[in-house]
Amino acid sequence: MTKKRDVYLHDISLEEARSRFAAALQAAGKWGPLPGEPVPVAEAAGRVTAEPVWARLSAPHYHASAMDGFAVRARDTVGATETRPVTLDLVGPATAAGRQAEDVARPAGPVNTGHPLPPWADAVVMVENVQLLDAQSAPASDLGGATAIQLRASVARWQHIRSMGEDMVATELVLPANHRLRPVDLGAIAGSGHRTVCVRRQPRVAIIPTGSELVPTDDVERVPMPGEIIEYNSIVLAAQVDEWGGSSDRWPIVGDDLDALRSAVKEAADSYDLVLVNAGSSAGTEDYTAAVIAELGQLLVHGIAVRPGHPVILGLVGTTPVIGVPGYPVSAAMTGEILVEPLLAHWLGRPALERPRVEATMTRQVLSPVGDDEFLRVTIGQVGDRMVATPLGRGAGTISTLVRADGIVVIPRFSEGIAAGERVDVRLYRDPGALRRTIVAIGSHDLALDLLAQFLAERMPGMRLASANVGSLGGLVALRRGEAHLAGSHLLDPESGLYNITYVRRYLPGERVVLYTLVEREQGFIVPAGNPAGISGWDDLCREELRYVNRQRGAGTRMLLDYELGLRSIAPDAISGYDRQEYTHLAVAAAIASGTADLGLGIRAAATALELGFVPLGVERYDLVIPGAFAESDLLRPLLDLLNDDAFRAQVASLPGYLVDKMGESTAVTPPGERGQVSTVARGGQAPAR
Amino acid sequence: MTKKRDVYLHDISLEEARSRFAAALQAAGKWGPLPGEPVPVAEAAGRVTAEPVWARLSAPHYHASAMDGFAVRARDTVGATETRPVTLDLVGPATAAGRQAEDVARPAGPVNTGHPLPPWADAVVMVENVQLLDAQSAPASDLGGATAIQLRASVARWQHIRSMGEDMVATELVLPANHRLRPVDLGAIAGSGHRTVCVRRQPRVAIIPTGSELVPTDDVERVPMPGEIIEYNSIVLAAQVDEWGGSSDRWPIVGDDLDALRSAVKEAADSYDLVLVNAGSSAGTEDYTAAVIAELGQLLVHGIAVRPGHPVILGLVGTTPVIGVPGYPVSAAMTGEILVEPLLAHWLGRPALERPRVEATMTRQVLSPVGDDEFLRVTIGQVGDRMVATPLGRGAGTISTLVRADGIVVIPRFSEGIAAGERVDVRLYRDPGALRRTIVAIGSHDLALDLLAQFLAERMPGMRLASANVGSLGGLVALRRGEAHLAGSHLLDPESGLYNITYVRRYLPGERVVLYTLVEREQGFIVPAGNPAGISGWDDLCREELRYVNRQRGAGTRMLLDYELGLRSIAPDAISGYDRQEYTHLAVAAAIASGTADLGLGIRAAATALELGFVPLGVERYDLVIPGAFAESDLLRPLLDLLNDDAFRAQVASLPGYLVDKMGESTAVTPPGERGQVSTVARGGQAPAR
Repeated sequence: MTKKRDVYLHDISLEEARSRFAAALQAAGKWGPLPGEPVPVAEAAGRVTAEPVWARLSAPHYHASAMDGFAVRARDTVGATETRPVTLDLVGPATAAGRQAEDVARPAGPVNTGHPLPPWADAVVMVENVQLLDAQSAPASDLGGATAIQLRASVARWQHIRSMGEDMVATELVLPANHRLRPVDLGAIAGSGHRTVCVRRQPRVAIIPTGSELVPTDDVERVPMPGEIIEYNSIVLAAQVDEWGGSSDRWPIVGDDLDALRSAVKEAADSYDLVLVNAGSSAGTEDYTAAVIAELGQLLVHGIAVRPGHPVILGLVGTTPVIGVPGYPVSAAMTGEILVEPLLAHWLGRPALERPRVEATMTRQVLSPVGDDEFLRVTIGQVGDRMVATPLGRGAGTISTLVRADGIVVIPRFSEGIAAGERVDVRLYRDPGALRRTIVAIGSHDLALDLLAQFLAERMPGMRLASANVGSLGGLVALRRGEAHLAGSHLLDPESGLYNITYVRRYLPGERVVLYTLVEREQGFIVPAGNPAGISGWDDLCREELRYVNRQRGAGTRMLLDYELGLRSIAPDAISGYDRQEYTHLAVAAAIASGTADLGLGIRAAATALELGFVPLGVERYDLVIPGAFAESDLLRPLLDLLNDDAFRAQVASLPGYLVDKMGESTAVTPPGERGQVSTVARGGQAPAR
Repeated sequence: MTKKRDVYLHDISLEEARSRFAAALQAAGKWGPLPGEPVPVAEAAGRVTAEPVWARLSAPHYHASAMDGFAVRARDTVGATETRPVTLDLVGPATAAGRQAEDVARPAGPVNTGHPLPPWADAVVMVENVQLLDAQSAPASDLGGATAIQLRASVARWQHIRSMGEDMVATELVLPANHRLRPVDLGAIAGSGHRTVCVRRQPRVAIIPTGSELVPTDDVERVPMPGEIIEYNSIVLAAQVDEWGGSSDRWPIVGDDLDALRSAVKEAADSYDLVLVNAGSSAGTEDYTAAVIAELGQLLVHGIAVRPGHPVILGLVGTTPVIGVPGYPVSAAMTGEILVEPLLAHWLGRPALERPRVEATMTRQVLSPVGDDEFLRVTIGQVGDRMVATPLGRGAGTISTLVRADGIVVIPRFSEGIAAGERVDVRLYRDPGALRRTIVAIGSHDLALDLLAQFLAERMPGMRLASANVGSLGGLVALRRGEAHLAGSHLLDPESGLYNITYVRRYLPGERVVLYTLVEREQGFIVPAGNPAGISGWDDLCREELRYVNRQRGAGTRMLLDYELGLRSIAPDAISGYDRQEYTHLAVAAAIASGTADLGLGIRAAATALELGFVPLGVERYDLVIPGAFAESDLLRPLLDLLNDDAFRAQVASLPGYLVDKMGESTAVTPPGERGQVSTVARGGQAPAR
């Protein structure tokens, strides 16, 4: 705060930034593919050819027998039939006769697959198609005793011969330049007579983390202090560089010390092809980077109109490009994708990485600031016939959203956003095939749902439960819109005392839906360890000195609170903190653990996880709400099977406050007028029939 | 040949073989994912998680300021407006005042992005939105001289704060087991407080090449002898294993020596998870493998009904699986794909590799033997709106076809094949995106076309010219069927003396087509070096002692021969070897180089490439025939631009017998009745208009 700062002084477009960078690299002589280097063929997988590979030898490099049998001259076999067989005399060292081809009129020489064809022969006959004869013209039992063979059919010239050059002819093009070598390519290169192959040198990339607040990951076994940030951007950037064909070096962390940073950047620029300086998340450290680049070389760009990623810095030190990578982890990873990868691709002479794409329907509206290209993280799933995209959190600080993202939707800088239901083009982070094996859950958050995801991944490699936490009501709305396969829900109908059924009828009218009970769980107040404020029940909510932390609108827990407040005629604004909303039980617990709230409604397991106190208020049912068509689909079968899996049940039962007695019970809710509007089946039984 | 052999004794289906193998591994205790091992997070990219990763710390692990500005209490700012600003007193060490929060009624503390929020604060206001005041309540220029700040708007609670756990809450699931780690995953693991991650041990795979005919690639700088085979299957298999997450070791070549093979297999089985024994191409070496496995352990499968790949052997030695991989290179690579990869995937706990798929139209009929699953290599291209698949050579010995393959079509064992025009499901070896940048050329072979492919790949990374050699007429037929973007053609009309135009009119009636001249080239007889037979012209074809090697029906060179024979009233069967057909100029030259033919018609460049003699007979024109719509497409533009590229022209001109004066000349052939039926434009000009 003591330095003067010019925040995003030059907030230019991505294309403009790229072209400035390319022009500067061109002027510095650093544009164009890197030179080649010879590498033994066996070590060249994944490398990119720097020049074309021409066949040095033909393959095969001689006429080879393609079968086990006998080399013959086709003209000697003309006229052979079942009734008038033709006899050929065996020649060569392996035979009893030991004669040479020149010595006999019609020779036949034994050959194995791969053996060279004798110069006098022009065809091969398979061993299965001849009769061995001994010196007395009687059938011989093996080759050792044979002196001739008999054929009962004529043979075509060049039959069962792999001609010289059949695979590759010397001087032929085996592979072009700029080709990324796959395992079979190595075979073709070796097979055409090469011991080495000329591949592009790997771009060397130095990654310098900077910021006094950073602590190395080696140190994380101790609990970091508030204000300390675990330095992991360099790990992500290094893994990206290596994956994209570069060679990365992670440098030690440089504190907020202009001299230290200057000498590190200078030293790195002298010996690397590219230097990435990764600021900590504070703006001060970014300034140091810009200042150092400006001082040592040329500051080309400071701030690019993309999100996340805004404060990117591009410059040159000497003739070496330096990129100031923003500190927030999502910004850092995206800077790798949009700026580092294309540069490495260019140097390697390969096309820039192109992710597979899929068209999907956006489930909700996304407003985007005009002026920035936004890279929106989304989850994708195929629900029925539709591919649906659901936006994830947009903060630059939440790497978990990037981990959970199935892909990216680019919202161009002159767009104001995306309407709900709009078709969007998604650049996928996963195989398109994996999306078909993804079960999409949107609704209430529950720890047993995380365990379900975990068991599913373990039992059925490749299958995935992707869940978005939007609360119970939000889940039912998502089901109605066809955006999810299932919704976790714990909605109590105060009048009937039933869970979920009333709401399912209201939100999914006319549809057949099956409710599978996942768990019953204890709800209560999460409080600091030892319950220092002596909280004992609902009425404590009105105590003025207590700060409450609430759940978001539409969450089952929030509706439970509102229901209880109504019963007691307590006005929401009588509760300090009613307006502070969190989206999960654990987030509520975290607020209490950090001391910024004194109580919040949530499940016991969340309190126990963070070693907090818990004041039980009751037990509630948590169901998986599943439209009938999905409940009976092959996709969901493995997940529903887990509800009867003893190991899964045992692990859920070990969660504090979780009861699994009713796990797997199913209740079919059919539209009014159909037979059996609600029918319940105990676990292990068949799903309730229509 | 001296041993008794039971050829493919057990020719079982792939599914049967896999299930026998799995059952045996299960009995041996070798089924199920491998155990985990802790690996530093920074070294874990590409590895597969062996257990779920739960957050050890929350991220952030404290409430952090998300902006540069001031920590405040929201309630202190209530009522602030433009006309009635609120003043807050600065606290903390960085200020002139140096006061502490307890000392003042309404505190404001400076914070940078990432700084911990003071315990008394519940919001952050951005530095841009405050006015600094000095001790005299006058505007202050910097923080050092300021004692207070003034706000002109109220602030919401929790504004610009990254709450503790916003990204991940301690105890939360970060990643499930069986997940292949990507760069961003490493960030999430480190960020949630882990220094190491538990990943599956990499399966260790020994690869033992066997066969006395094999020579190591290190030896290929010398020219191998006839009968010697360059050993490269172990390179391909090792690169496959490593790519699929295993750890490979290539063992030295073992000759055809039962004892040596026995001890190698025994030693490898003792210390590896999987042993691959790769027979040479002769059936004898395969027998050794089966015999050794049967002797040391259990022979489970000998022969699987797949092509290519037939003679696969599966067995156990001790409890270690051993796979006898067939010797032919395509069989070896396919055995890796269909048997080794799924096993490695299983051990790693990840789903088996699933290649992207595309539906395509098969361009020609493919007959397949009933009883075998056939893995058919195809090239793929998008021609107009259609994805078309063209079968490649099906020999197990031609690795070049696997290199050129864009994908595989599986023909099930009970199918007789695929009809021309049938829709097939292709498992892709390339990115689907790359197919859209592929120019499909089907037609006559020419060396300048190889150079064009090479220049295109170099100038436009990611673009590709895929050419299939089927002769000039075959190319025109392919264009008519919509299977190619262009066809190389050199078809002389004897009556008009014109090249190609007559045939284009006949084969592509009613269509507008542009002919671009690629080259003019010398045709003549390719003969052994020094022309020992003294061949001088067409009439030598009738000399009885000379063996001719012909081109295939439909090739321009073949049609030239037939035309000349007609002129001279020479009957084809007067020519010894008229029936021996090769598909390229180089293959004809190779036949002569190997001494199995004495002459063949072809281009001078092919003779020179293999250091042969050449008897010139004339100069012919070789055109690229391109339908009008493609000629003007963005896809073909870079290729056509190369016809005017000096470097390309110079390199083509350096090919022996190639003339480039007319390169780039274009001739538009329009349907009769349209204006200007044939119009020619010199190179560099605009494409002829309709």
